[in-house]
Amino acid sequence: MASLELWYEFASTYSYPAAMRVARVADAAGVTVRWRPFLLGPIFGSQGWNDSPFNIYPAKGKNMWRDLERICAAEGIPLKHPPFRFPQNGLKAARIALAGEAEGWTPAFTRAVYAANFAEQKDIADDAVLADILMRMGKDASAVTVAANTAENKDRLKKQTEEAIARGIYGAPSFTIGDELFWGNDRLEQAVAWAKENLDQ
Amino acid sequence: MASLELWYEFASTYSYPAAMRVARVADAAGVTVRWRPFLLGPIFGSQGWNDSPFNIYPAKGKNMWRDLERICAAEGIPLKHPPFRFPQNGLKAARIALAGEAEGWTPAFTRAVYAANFAEQKDIADDAVLADILMRMGKDASAVTVAANTAENKDRLKKQTEEAIARGIYGAPSFTIGDELFWGNDRLEQAVAWAKENLDQ
Repeated sequence: MASLELWYEFASTYSYPAAMRVARVADAAGVTVRWRPFLLGPIFGSQGWNDSPFNIYPAKGKNMWRDLERICAAEGIPLKHPPFRFPQNGLKAARIALAGEAEGWTPAFTRAVYAANFAEQKDIADDAVLADILMRMGKDASAVTVAANTAENKDRLKKQTEEAIARGIYGAPSFTIGDELFWGNDRLEQAVAWAKENLDQ
Repeated sequence: MASLELWYEFASTYSYPAAMRVARVADAAGVTVRWRPFLLGPIFGSQGWNDSPFNIYPAKGKNMWRDLERICAAEGIPLKHPPFRFPQNGLKAARIALAGEAEGWTPAFTRAVYAANFAEQKDIADDAVLADILMRMGKDASAVTVAANTAENKDRLKKQTEEAIARGIYGAPSFTIGDELFWGNDRLEQAVAWAKENLDQ
Protein backbone atom coordinates (compact mmCIF):
# COMPACT_ATOMS: atom_id res chain seq x y z
CA MET A 1 0.00 0.00 0.00
CA ALA A 2 1.23 3.51 -0.83
CA SER A 3 2.49 5.49 2.16
CA LEU A 4 4.15 8.76 3.05
CA GLU A 5 5.88 10.19 6.07
CA LEU A 6 4.68 13.40 7.73
CA TRP A 7 7.50 15.26 9.49
CA TYR A 8 6.24 17.83 11.97
CA GLU A 9 7.32 20.08 14.84
CA PHE A 10 4.79 21.06 17.50
CA ALA A 11 5.85 24.72 17.44
CA SER A 12 5.35 25.02 13.68
CA THR A 13 2.34 26.99 12.56
CA TYR A 14 1.87 25.38 9.13
CA SER A 15 2.27 21.91 10.67
CA TYR A 16 -1.05 22.60 12.44
CA PRO A 17 -3.34 22.52 9.36
CA ALA A 18 -1.20 19.73 7.88
CA ALA A 19 -1.70 17.57 10.97
CA MET A 20 -5.44 18.29 10.96
CA ARG A 21 -5.80 17.51 7.22
CA VAL A 22 -3.36 14.70 6.47
CA ALA A 23 -5.44 11.69 7.55
CA ARG A 24 -8.48 12.81 5.54
CA VAL A 25 -6.53 13.62 2.37
CA ALA A 26 -4.36 10.49 2.56
CA ASP A 27 -7.28 8.17 3.44
CA ALA A 28 -9.27 9.44 0.45
CA ALA A 29 -6.38 8.40 -1.81
CA GLY A 30 -5.74 5.09 -0.07
CA VAL A 31 -2.35 6.29 1.22
CA THR A 32 -1.13 5.49 4.73
CA VAL A 33 0.75 8.02 6.88
CA ARG A 34 3.66 7.55 9.24
CA TRP A 35 3.72 10.40 11.76
CA ARG A 36 7.27 11.55 12.49
CA PRO A 37 7.71 14.29 15.10
CA PHE A 38 11.09 16.00 15.08
CA LEU A 39 12.70 19.21 16.35
CA LEU A 40 13.32 22.27 14.21
CA GLY A 41 15.50 23.98 16.84
CA PRO A 42 18.74 22.18 15.91
CA ILE A 43 18.09 22.76 12.19
CA PHE A 44 17.35 26.45 12.61
CA GLY A 45 20.33 26.76 14.96
CA SER A 46 22.65 25.32 12.31
CA GLN A 47 21.39 28.06 9.95
CA GLY A 48 22.26 30.74 12.48
CA TRP A 49 18.71 31.28 13.71
CA ASN A 50 18.04 31.21 17.46
CA ASP A 51 14.35 32.02 16.98
CA SER A 52 11.58 31.31 14.48
CA PRO A 53 12.22 32.96 11.09
CA PHE A 54 8.70 34.36 11.50
CA ASN A 55 10.01 36.39 14.46
CA ILE A 56 13.41 37.19 12.92
CA TYR A 57 11.77 38.54 9.72
CA PRO A 58 8.72 40.52 10.87
CA ALA A 59 7.16 41.15 7.43
CA LYS A 60 7.29 37.42 6.73
CA GLY A 61 5.86 36.66 10.17
CA LYS A 62 2.99 39.12 9.82
CA ASN A 63 1.93 37.65 6.49
CA MET A 64 2.34 34.08 7.79
CA TRP A 65 -0.27 34.72 10.48
CA ARG A 66 -2.64 36.30 7.95
CA ASP A 67 -2.06 33.43 5.51
CA LEU A 68 -2.67 30.88 8.28
CA GLU A 69 -5.93 32.65 9.17
CA ARG A 70 -7.09 32.36 5.55
CA ILE A 71 -6.06 28.69 5.33
CA CYS A 72 -7.72 27.71 8.60
CA ALA A 73 -10.89 29.65 7.72
CA ALA A 74 -11.10 27.87 4.36
CA GLU A 75 -10.60 24.48 6.02
CA GLY A 76 -12.89 25.12 9.00
CA ILE A 77 -9.99 24.73 11.44
CA PRO A 78 -10.18 26.95 14.57
CA LEU A 79 -7.23 29.31 15.09
CA LYS A 80 -6.23 31.51 18.02
CA HIS A 81 -2.75 32.94 18.29
CA PRO A 82 -0.67 31.51 21.16
CA PRO A 83 -1.13 34.43 23.57
CA PHE A 84 2.04 34.26 25.61
CA ARG A 85 4.83 32.96 23.43
CA PHE A 86 5.61 32.02 19.84
CA PRO A 87 7.10 29.60 19.08
CA GLN A 88 6.12 27.34 21.93
CA ASN A 89 8.50 24.65 23.19
CA GLY A 90 7.43 21.33 21.69
CA LEU A 91 10.17 19.10 23.12
CA LYS A 92 8.08 17.28 25.76
CA ALA A 93 5.17 16.81 23.36
CA ALA A 94 7.49 15.42 20.67
CA ARG A 95 8.91 12.85 23.11
CA ILE A 96 5.41 11.75 24.09
CA ALA A 97 4.26 11.59 20.46
CA LEU A 98 7.21 9.34 19.66
CA ALA A 99 6.49 7.13 22.66
CA GLY A 100 2.96 6.60 21.35
CA GLU A 101 4.00 5.23 17.97
CA ALA A 102 4.10 1.56 18.97
CA GLU A 103 0.59 1.77 20.46
CA GLY A 104 -0.81 3.76 17.56
CA TRP A 105 -2.06 6.85 19.40
CA THR A 106 0.50 9.31 17.98
CA PRO A 107 -1.94 10.89 15.47
CA ALA A 108 -4.69 11.54 18.04
CA PHE A 109 -2.20 12.92 20.58
CA THR A 110 -0.58 15.10 17.92
CA ARG A 111 -3.86 16.64 16.83
CA ALA A 112 -4.80 17.36 20.46
CA VAL A 113 -1.46 19.10 21.13
CA TYR A 114 -1.81 21.24 17.99
CA ALA A 115 -5.33 22.21 19.07
CA ALA A 116 -3.98 23.14 22.52
CA ASN A 117 -1.26 25.27 20.91
CA PHE A 118 -3.13 27.00 18.09
CA ALA A 119 -6.81 26.91 19.09
CA GLU A 120 -6.99 26.69 22.89
CA GLN A 121 -4.16 29.04 23.88
CA LYS A 122 -2.59 26.50 26.21
CA ASP A 123 1.10 26.06 27.09
CA ILE A 124 2.16 22.80 25.44
CA ALA A 125 5.37 22.71 27.49
CA ASP A 126 3.25 22.49 30.68
CA ASP A 127 3.21 18.93 32.08
CA ALA A 128 -0.36 19.43 33.32
CA VAL A 129 -1.58 20.36 29.82
CA LEU A 130 0.06 17.27 28.31
CA ALA A 131 -1.24 15.02 31.12
CA ASP A 132 -4.75 16.35 30.58
CA ILE A 133 -4.56 15.50 26.87
CA LEU A 134 -3.36 11.96 27.67
CA MET A 135 -6.08 11.45 30.28
CA ARG A 136 -8.78 12.57 27.87
CA MET A 137 -7.40 9.92 25.50
CA GLY A 138 -7.82 7.30 28.24
CA LYS A 139 -4.07 6.96 28.82
CA ASP A 140 -2.19 6.64 32.11
CA ALA A 141 -0.42 10.01 31.96
CA SER A 142 2.21 9.09 34.55
CA ALA A 143 3.18 5.86 32.80
CA VAL A 144 3.36 7.61 29.43
CA THR A 145 5.50 10.41 30.85
CA VAL A 146 7.93 7.88 32.29
CA ALA A 147 8.12 6.09 28.91
CA ALA A 148 8.61 9.40 27.09
CA ASN A 149 11.50 10.38 29.35
CA THR A 150 13.59 7.23 29.17
CA ALA A 151 17.09 7.76 27.80
CA GLU A 152 16.14 5.46 24.95
CA ASN A 153 13.13 7.52 23.89
CA LYS A 154 15.00 10.82 24.22
CA ASP A 155 17.73 9.37 22.03
CA ARG A 156 15.14 8.20 19.52
CA LEU A 157 13.90 11.78 19.09
CA LYS A 158 17.47 12.97 18.60
CA LYS A 159 18.00 10.30 15.94
CA GLN A 160 14.70 11.18 14.28
CA THR A 161 15.84 14.80 14.00
CA GLU A 162 19.21 13.68 12.65
CA GLU A 163 17.40 11.55 10.08
CA ALA A 164 15.30 14.56 9.07
CA ILE A 165 18.47 16.59 8.44
CA ALA A 166 20.09 13.71 6.53
CA ARG A 167 17.00 13.49 4.33
CA GLY A 168 17.24 17.17 3.40
CA ILE A 169 14.46 18.46 5.64
CA TYR A 170 14.82 22.14 6.59
CA GLY A 171 11.31 23.10 7.71
CA ALA A 172 7.95 21.75 8.83
CA PRO A 173 5.68 20.26 7.86
CA SER A 174 7.54 18.12 5.35
CA PHE A 175 6.40 15.02 3.53
CA THR A 176 8.72 12.29 2.27
CA ILE A 177 8.14 9.36 -0.02
CA GLY A 178 11.50 7.64 -0.24
CA ASP A 179 13.91 10.31 -1.47
CA GLU A 180 11.13 12.62 -2.66
CA LEU A 181 10.69 15.61 -0.36
CA PHE A 182 7.77 18.03 -0.24
CA TRP A 183 7.81 21.03 2.08
CA GLY A 184 4.76 22.82 3.43
CA ASN A 185 1.10 22.28 4.21
CA ASP A 186 0.34 23.50 0.69
CA ARG A 187 2.22 20.51 -0.77
CA LEU A 188 0.12 17.87 1.05
CA GLU A 189 -2.08 17.07 -1.93
CA GLN A 190 0.93 16.79 -4.27
CA ALA A 191 2.76 14.52 -1.82
CA VAL A 192 -0.26 12.23 -1.49
CA ALA A 193 -0.65 12.11 -5.27
CA TRP A 194 3.07 11.34 -5.63
CA ALA A 195 2.79 8.48 -3.12
CA LYS A 196 -0.19 7.06 -4.95
CA GLU A 197 1.34 7.34 -8.43
CA ASN A 198 4.76 6.02 -7.51
CA LEU A 199 4.03 3.41 -4.85
CA ASP A 200 0.56 2.02 -5.49
CA GLN A 201 1.10 -1.20 -7.39
CA MET B 1 -13.94 45.02 -12.52
CA ALA B 2 -12.00 42.97 -9.98
CA SER B 3 -8.23 43.29 -10.22
CA LEU B 4 -5.05 42.27 -8.48
CA GLU B 5 -1.44 43.31 -8.60
CA LEU B 6 1.33 40.83 -9.40
CA TRP B 7 4.66 41.80 -7.82
CA TYR B 8 7.62 40.01 -9.37
CA GLU B 9 11.41 39.99 -9.58
CA PHE B 10 13.11 38.63 -12.71
CA ALA B 11 15.65 36.62 -10.70
CA SER B 12 12.95 34.86 -8.68
CA THR B 13 12.36 31.22 -9.50
CA TYR B 14 8.77 30.96 -8.30
CA SER B 15 7.88 34.19 -10.10
CA TYR B 16 8.48 32.27 -13.33
CA PRO B 17 5.47 29.90 -13.15
CA ALA B 18 3.40 32.72 -11.62
CA ALA B 19 4.14 35.00 -14.58
CA MET B 20 3.35 32.20 -17.03
CA ARG B 21 0.06 31.29 -15.27
CA VAL B 22 -1.40 34.55 -13.99
CA ALA B 23 -3.13 35.79 -17.14
CA ARG B 24 -4.90 32.47 -17.76
CA VAL B 25 -6.06 32.03 -14.16
CA ALA B 26 -7.13 35.66 -13.74
CA ASP B 27 -8.86 35.83 -17.13
CA ALA B 28 -10.89 32.72 -16.35
CA ALA B 29 -12.21 34.46 -13.24
CA GLY B 30 -12.76 37.83 -14.94
CA VAL B 31 -10.01 39.45 -12.87
CA THR B 32 -7.55 41.96 -14.39
CA VAL B 33 -3.86 42.00 -13.50
CA ARG B 34 -1.49 44.90 -12.99
CA TRP B 35 2.10 43.73 -13.54
CA ARG B 36 4.48 45.30 -11.02
CA PRO B 37 8.18 44.48 -11.40
CA PHE B 38 10.31 45.32 -8.36
CA LEU B 39 13.72 44.40 -6.92
CA LEU B 40 14.25 41.88 -4.15
CA GLY B 41 17.90 42.86 -3.61
CA PRO B 42 17.20 45.84 -1.33
CA ILE B 43 14.65 43.79 0.66
CA PHE B 44 16.97 40.82 1.11
CA GLY B 45 19.82 43.21 1.93
CA SER B 46 17.79 44.78 4.74
CA GLN B 47 17.35 41.26 6.18
CA GLY B 48 21.10 40.71 6.17
CA TRP B 49 21.17 38.55 3.02
CA ASN B 50 23.59 39.44 0.25
CA ASP B 51 22.55 36.45 -1.86
CA SER B 52 19.43 34.42 -2.57
CA PRO B 53 18.18 32.51 0.50
CA PHE B 54 18.20 29.48 -1.81
CA ASN B 55 21.99 29.81 -1.98
CA ILE B 56 22.48 30.80 1.66
CA TYR B 57 20.47 27.78 2.88
CA PRO B 58 21.52 24.86 0.63
CA ALA B 59 18.91 22.31 1.79
CA LYS B 60 16.18 24.85 1.08
CA GLY B 61 17.72 25.65 -2.30
CA LYS B 62 18.03 22.02 -3.33
CA ASN B 63 14.39 21.32 -2.57
CA MET B 64 13.27 24.57 -4.24
CA TRP B 65 14.75 23.40 -7.56
CA ARG B 66 13.11 19.98 -7.20
CA ASP B 67 9.79 21.58 -6.25
CA LEU B 68 10.03 23.95 -9.22
CA GLU B 69 10.68 20.98 -11.52
CA ARG B 70 7.52 19.28 -10.26
CA ILE B 71 5.46 22.48 -10.60
CA CYS B 72 6.69 23.26 -14.12
CA ALA B 73 6.19 19.63 -15.23
CA ALA B 74 2.61 19.65 -13.92
CA GLU B 75 1.89 22.96 -15.68
CA GLY B 76 3.68 22.08 -18.94
CA ILE B 77 6.15 24.95 -18.45
CA PRO B 78 9.71 24.27 -19.74
CA LEU B 79 12.49 24.55 -17.16
CA LYS B 80 16.27 24.55 -17.48
CA HIS B 81 18.48 25.76 -14.65
CA PRO B 82 20.33 29.01 -15.39
CA PRO B 83 23.71 27.46 -16.22
CA PHE B 84 26.10 30.19 -15.24
CA ARG B 85 24.66 32.10 -12.33
CA PHE B 86 21.75 32.04 -9.89
CA PRO B 87 20.22 34.41 -9.15
CA GLN B 88 20.58 36.39 -12.36
CA ASN B 89 20.62 40.19 -12.29
CA GLY B 90 17.15 41.43 -13.27
CA LEU B 91 17.73 45.17 -12.89
CA LYS B 92 17.82 46.08 -16.60
CA ALA B 93 14.86 43.85 -17.41
CA ALA B 94 12.84 45.37 -14.57
CA ARG B 95 13.49 48.89 -15.88
CA ILE B 96 12.37 47.87 -19.36
CA ALA B 97 9.28 46.08 -18.03
CA LEU B 98 8.29 49.22 -16.17
CA ALA B 99 8.88 51.38 -19.26
CA GLY B 100 6.45 49.17 -21.18
CA GLU B 101 3.53 49.66 -18.84
CA ALA B 102 2.04 52.70 -20.60
CA GLU B 103 2.11 50.91 -23.97
CA GLY B 104 0.74 47.66 -22.53
CA TRP B 105 3.55 45.28 -23.51
CA THR B 106 4.87 44.60 -20.01
CA PRO B 107 3.21 41.14 -19.70
CA ALA B 108 4.58 39.85 -23.05
CA PHE B 109 8.06 41.22 -22.33
CA THR B 110 8.01 39.76 -18.81
CA ARG B 111 7.10 36.28 -20.00
CA ALA B 112 9.84 36.40 -22.65
CA VAL B 113 12.47 37.41 -20.07
CA TYR B 114 11.40 34.63 -17.71
CA ALA B 115 11.63 32.13 -20.57
CA ALA B 116 15.14 33.43 -21.39
CA ASN B 117 16.16 33.03 -17.74
CA PHE B 118 14.57 29.71 -16.79
CA ALA B 119 14.04 27.85 -20.08
CA GLU B 120 16.58 29.18 -22.59
CA GLN B 121 19.66 29.54 -20.37
CA LYS B 122 20.32 33.09 -21.49
CA ASP B 123 21.87 35.95 -19.53
CA ILE B 124 19.04 38.40 -18.84
CA ALA B 125 21.52 41.10 -17.82
CA ASP B 126 22.99 41.03 -21.35
CA ASP B 127 21.81 44.01 -23.42
CA ALA B 128 21.83 41.87 -26.59
CA VAL B 129 19.48 39.31 -25.02
CA LEU B 130 17.04 42.03 -23.95
CA ALA B 131 17.28 43.78 -27.35
CA ASP B 132 16.54 40.49 -29.10
CA ILE B 133 13.41 40.01 -26.99
CA LEU B 134 12.23 43.54 -27.79
CA MET B 135 12.90 43.12 -31.52
CA ARG B 136 10.95 39.85 -31.63
CA MET B 137 8.08 41.82 -30.08
CA GLY B 138 8.35 44.36 -32.90
CA LYS B 139 9.77 47.09 -30.68
CA ASP B 140 12.55 49.57 -31.42
CA ALA B 141 15.08 48.17 -28.93
CA SER B 142 17.25 51.30 -28.91
CA ALA B 143 14.36 53.64 -28.23
CA VAL B 144 13.03 51.38 -25.47
CA THR B 145 16.47 51.14 -23.86
CA VAL B 146 16.75 54.93 -23.81
CA ALA B 147 13.30 55.21 -22.24
CA ALA B 148 14.16 52.53 -19.66
CA ASN B 149 17.33 54.34 -18.62
CA THR B 150 15.96 57.82 -18.06
CA ALA B 151 16.44 59.10 -14.52
CA GLU B 152 12.67 59.25 -14.24
CA ASN B 153 12.17 55.57 -15.08
CA LYS B 154 15.03 54.46 -12.81
CA ASP B 155 13.45 56.43 -10.03
CA ARG B 156 10.08 54.86 -10.75
CA LEU B 157 11.55 51.39 -10.20
CA LYS B 158 13.09 52.55 -6.92
CA LYS B 159 9.72 53.91 -5.81
CA GLN B 160 7.98 50.71 -6.90
CA THR B 161 10.37 48.71 -4.70
CA GLU B 162 9.79 51.13 -1.81
CA GLU B 163 6.05 50.71 -2.28
CA ALA B 164 6.48 46.91 -2.17
CA ILE B 165 8.28 47.20 1.18
CA ALA B 166 5.68 49.62 2.53
CA ARG B 167 2.95 47.16 1.58
CA GLY B 168 4.61 44.37 3.54
CA ILE B 169 6.13 42.47 0.60
CA TYR B 170 9.17 40.36 1.51
CA GLY B 171 9.42 37.90 -1.39
CA ALA B 172 8.32 37.19 -4.93
CA PRO B 173 5.96 36.55 -6.48
CA SER B 174 3.44 38.38 -4.33
CA PHE B 175 -0.14 39.31 -5.07
CA THR B 176 -1.96 42.27 -3.55
CA ILE B 177 -5.60 43.25 -3.56
CA GLY B 178 -5.71 46.47 -1.55
CA ASP B 179 -4.18 45.61 1.83
CA GLU B 180 -4.54 41.86 1.31
CA LEU B 181 -1.17 40.22 0.59
CA PHE B 182 -0.58 36.73 -0.79
CA TRP B 183 2.95 35.37 -1.16
CA GLY B 184 4.02 32.67 -3.59
CA ASN B 185 3.07 31.08 -6.88
CA ASP B 186 1.03 28.58 -4.88
CA ARG B 187 -1.24 31.39 -3.64
CA LEU B 188 -2.22 32.61 -7.13
CA GLU B 189 -5.59 30.84 -7.18
CA GLN B 190 -6.45 32.10 -3.67
CA ALA B 191 -5.48 35.66 -4.60
CA VAL B 192 -7.64 35.58 -7.75
CA ALA B 193 -10.56 34.16 -5.75
CA TRP B 194 -10.08 36.87 -3.12
CA ALA B 195 -10.09 39.59 -5.79
CA LYS B 196 -13.26 38.18 -7.29
CA GLU B 197 -15.12 37.77 -3.99
CA ASN B 198 -14.15 41.09 -2.52
CA LEU B 199 -14.06 43.42 -5.51
CA ASP B 200 -16.50 42.09 -8.11
CA GLN B 201 -19.66 44.11 -7.65
